[in-house]
Amino acid sequence: MSDSEVRDLNACLHTLAIEARELYLHDTVPVLDAPPSPLQFYRDYVSSNAPFIIRNAVGHWPAITKWNNKFLKETLGDKQVSVAVTPNGYADAINDGYFVMPEERQMKMGDFLDTLSEDSSSNGVFYLQKQNSNLTTELSCLMPDVDDHISWATEALGKLPDAVNFWLGDKRAITSMHKDHYENLYCVISGEKHFTLLPPTETYFVPYGDFPAAVYKENSKGEFDIVPQPDIGTVPWITVDPLSPNLKKYPEFGQARAINCTLKAGDMLYLPSLWFHHVHQSHGCIALNYWYDMEFDIKYNYFKFTESIGDICRYHKKAKEKIKKKESS
Amino acid sequence: MSDSEVRDLNACLHTLAIEARELYLHDTVPVLDAPPSPLQFYRDYVSSNAPFIIRNAVGHWPAITKWNNKFLKETLGDKQVSVAVTPNGYADAINDGYFVMPEERQMKMGDFLDTLSEDSSSNGVFYLQKQNSNLTTELSCLMPDVDDHISWATEALGKLPDAVNFWLGDKRAITSMHKDHYENLYCVISGEKHFTLLPPTETYFVPYGDFPAAVYKENSKGEFDIVPQPDIGTVPWITVDPLSPNLKKYPEFGQARAINCTLKAGDMLYLPSLWFHHVHQSHGCIALNYWYDMEFDIKYNYFKFTESIGDICRYHKKAKEKIKKKESS
Repeated sequence: MSDSEVRDLNACLHTLAIEARELYLHDTVPVLDAPPSPLQFYRDYVSSNAPFIIRNAVGHWPAITKWNNKFLKETLGDKQVSVAVTPNGYADAINDGYFVMPEERQMKMGDFLDTLSEDSSSNGVFYLQKQNSNLTTELSCLMPDVDDHISWATEALGKLPDAVNFWLGDKRAITSMHKDHYENLYCVISGEKHFTLLPPTETYFVPYGDFPAAVYKENSKGEFDIVPQPDIGTVPWITVDPLSPNLKKYPEFGQARAINCTLKAGDMLYLPSLWFHHVHQSHGCIALNYWYDMEFDIKYNYFKFTESIGDICRYHKKAKEKIKKKESS
Repeated sequence: MSDSEVRDLNACLHTLAIEARELYLHDTVPVLDAPPSPLQFYRDYVSSNAPFIIRNAVGHWPAITKWNNKFLKETLGDKQVSVAVTPNGYADAINDGYFVMPEERQMKMGDFLDTLSEDSSSNGVFYLQKQNSNLTTELSCLMPDVDDHISWATEALGKLPDAVNFWLGDKRAITSMHKDHYENLYCVISGEKHFTLLPPTETYFVPYGDFPAAVYKENSKGEFDIVPQPDIGTVPWITVDPLSPNLKKYPEFGQARAINCTLKAGDMLYLPSLWFHHVHQSHGCIALNYWYDMEFDIKYNYFKFTESIGDICRYHKKAKEKIKKKESS
């Protein structure tokens, strides 16, 4: 490909992102006064793959006033739960050339809650975040305090959620940028969650790499070793931190227009399928999210196409850069 | 672009079309037993941009039994209507290097109906097909015999139709392949309409050209002159006839998978926005269609991107072919 040809593809990929912003997205996440009707939800948001927030959408749930560390300790103190433990708060993230998953530890809920207390001497960052519908399985006794599905979303999408996940953890715990094949309704019960969002039409700006899989494992000295997991092979993962992007290394990411938003207790975010998201939180923040299977329809079809064109463009850009470097050396 | 690089883009464009067929389209247009609910319509068809037919959807309309040439002559015989007249049945189609629009003639409905009779000595092919909501304007006295909108579609789309068009004409009258920026509900009142449909994900296979605009004008000898319309400039139009494609000239069209369907009296077709369609009909077929403005949302955004990538791929393919020809001569 000649320079001008690569520029042609590059220009198309930029135009896609810019026109999305102009046609149907906003500078900020729109805030609705009340839940949409099922039809409005599908037509105005799911179909056009656009997020929204409803302030105080779940303020009426008993969970909002009931769930705190004391209550959880009393109710679930002896319950065994799966907790993700990392040295730095980054579970499922790149470290030292690996895609490193957390050490998954079975522990009593009471002991986990102790790791969040101010005077905790625990080693590492603890995050209750197992996304296997842990609310309906490990923590099902909490279900009466919340809705087991979001009725207008269930009606709109024509199915029940595939998973309801409970999140509780340290302020240092970070969900690194990624995307899911789910329509996601994210509700904060206490504290705050901070989201950085990017639409799938900006996929070209988001750099990926392939990394061998590994897990953290605390050793006898209290250090976290990175233990390779050759059986898993390599994992494609996003290489940029949207909160402090290395634009010298990933200049294209400078073209991305991230949208930030914060959810407080009672708020709900509709996070559309395939949107890139990075999440961090206040200390001890409790949240729930409802994952509904996405449709593998025309949006997904076009997204895969866009990814493949982005791959071609990036490949030829890199090839050109290599040639230029060779010529100048 | 090298041959292999053009093949990469080409492969992506083919994959887009093939995956659409595998993921959410069908070999034939699905037939529903009854109208969908507004939510089903939006979720299962509008959002995924997929057509369907409802057999006998409008069989209860008085129009189905009332509307025939005799009734129309009695009711509307003296009414002035706009009729498209062409020498060959092709209105808005390519002829002799021009994009030729029909001669638009104001005539009495009775005289127009006479052109459709077996013993007519009229010169040319006559088609009542003016798509300016002619049912609600010129022919509004027919409105009581039909619905003035399709209630479940109006509710789903959150708006009334932008236009309701009445179609009546000669079996030689052809609507050449094109696409519209509308969600289209097409209803046959009498006779048969034959559709050839192609989804927008196959846009790369559909060849376009730019043609200077012209109109037909019958001269004193009864011949139809092609009169250039320089004020209009050039019009981009599809160069292939899907019923007898010139695959030597347009080999890519051989990769397109057209879907054919026929509507009979009472049937309704949901023809999604941006789908390419070619239409012909039985003699004297009467039909109505409801045009609802489409949303310029993520589907449109991705479609424009796909078009632009197709343009780049075609451009470089042609450039390669020219070089090859030069080299071999």
